[in-house]
Amino acid sequence: MPQHKISADSPIGIFDSGVGGLTVVKAVQACLPSERIIYFGDTARVPYGPKSQVTIRKYAREDTELLMKHQPKMIIVACNTVSALALDVVQQTSGDIPVIGVLKAGAELAARQSRSGRIGVIGTQATIHSNAYACAINELDPNLEVFSKACPLFVPLAEEGFIDHPATRLVAGEYLSELLTSKIDTLVLGCTHYPILRGMIESISGAGVNIIDSAEAVASKAKYLLASEGMLNPGTGQAMPHLMVSDLPQKFRELYRLFMGTEMPDVELVGM
Amino acid sequence: MPQHKISADSPIGIFDSGVGGLTVVKAVQACLPSERIIYFGDTARVPYGPKSQVTIRKYAREDTELLMKHQPKMIIVACNTVSALALDVVQQTSGDIPVIGVLKAGAELAARQSRSGRIGVIGTQATIHSNAYACAINELDPNLEVFSKACPLFVPLAEEGFIDHPATRLVAGEYLSELLTSKIDTLVLGCTHYPILRGMIESISGAGVNIIDSAEAVASKAKYLLASEGMLNPGTGQAMPHLMVSDLPQKFRELYRLFMGTEMPDVELVGM
Repeated sequence: MPQHKISADSPIGIFDSGVGGLTVVKAVQACLPSERIIYFGDTARVPYGPKSQVTIRKYAREDTELLMKHQPKMIIVACNTVSALALDVVQQTSGDIPVIGVLKAGAELAARQSRSGRIGVIGTQATIHSNAYACAINELDPNLEVFSKACPLFVPLAEEGFIDHPATRLVAGEYLSELLTSKIDTLVLGCTHYPILRGMIESISGAGVNIIDSAEAVASKAKYLLASEGMLNPGTGQAMPHLMVSDLPQKFRELYRLFMGTEMPDVELVGM
Repeated sequence: MPQHKISADSPIGIFDSGVGGLTVVKAVQACLPSERIIYFGDTARVPYGPKSQVTIRKYAREDTELLMKHQPKMIIVACNTVSALALDVVQQTSGDIPVIGVLKAGAELAARQSRSGRIGVIGTQATIHSNAYACAINELDPNLEVFSKACPLFVPLAEEGFIDHPATRLVAGEYLSELLTSKIDTLVLGCTHYPILRGMIESISGAGVNIIDSAEAVASKAKYLLASEGMLNPGTGQAMPHLMVSDLPQKFRELYRLFMGTEMPDVELVGM
């Protein structure tokens, strides 16, 4: 393999199974405004969540290979499913550049901030069933108690734009009730779509529960790592992210606006 | 191409983007209990709905090629998205065996049964935006008025098992209100998942609205066509359907039970 040439000016590569990872792009832009970002959303094969491990690991390798062609200085796995089930595959495929995933970053921040030691985690079926958040949190501190709940309707409700809808309130109330009965003081949003519903989730969980957004967590971790390696981009001014997708869904422009709050830039369509 | 050998004993091939087409398998079993059925659910690439036309047409060709290896005497396209956007691809790929799709079968039944001439159609975003039901209905009778509404949350609500849940009632009430204001007398369930929510949809639309289940419609059309060609299977007794999927999602067994009301038989995993 030819030597991978990286410098402080190299881009940060971010990938996700679809559009959800745009919340990570947004958090990285907010935290590291001078960095160049290259994003791949595997919109042709979304969602990864319900698929088998074998399939998820194959996709993770292919997604990483695609980003590696752009010689990134770091890869951020914005997909919770890949972070939970295939981070090792991403690491093997990307050589010696740092790889960080939303899952571990969210787990670290939750473990650091919880006072009562009772932490709730919500995510897709696959993320929750993998138990990966609970394992990551307990690896940091075995005394922390983790209460998990799969919330499969949050992604479609967010994508339908039912941000402040009574049906979303009903569903969220039901999904969160067990966690709240368990007296958690910290709640990890373990799916990249969930920041879209953050307001609703906060209004149900109340002021006593500290919300951990894994997208924000991974963005500050990226900043810390790049700074400690002297790899922060010295430039100023913010470039548009370079967007790659494997399919251009009919709603993509609308979803981009929902996730990023700005108009969509040009998008590169890549075959997977 | 070698001559395709078919007889009355040949199976009926059915495919869908995922598990939804199982409602068609169930309807065909009820209507044609002696037929052998081979079903392919493209669970690795589901959903087709939000994907681009180019991708949907490519998938339709590949799905048909897979079924053709089993020398079916007929192909039923259980997927509304493929029926709407790529039925011609299926026809080109399957040589001279009959190909029927849920969409046209549902449209025909609705056109035949509506008294007031005001027909509602609900389906996924892609099916509704393609306007294919309205076109198919108006091709049969240009005087019929078609009122369409995309209901993107119905599939996730059905798969979550929220069959009789207040959130589903709220969402369904909102989705259906416009159609009901338009005084339709017929409502086409233009997505294979929707029969799961039929009870809820009926209770909201009321006794004055006749529900057309495209799965039932395509099953009776299949029976009519096979009978008129002397191709009904003379055997008795019902075999289990031969199931093929491109991925084995973690929830597949549960979904099979939800759709078919029976335990899942053996499933063949095929690479796509």
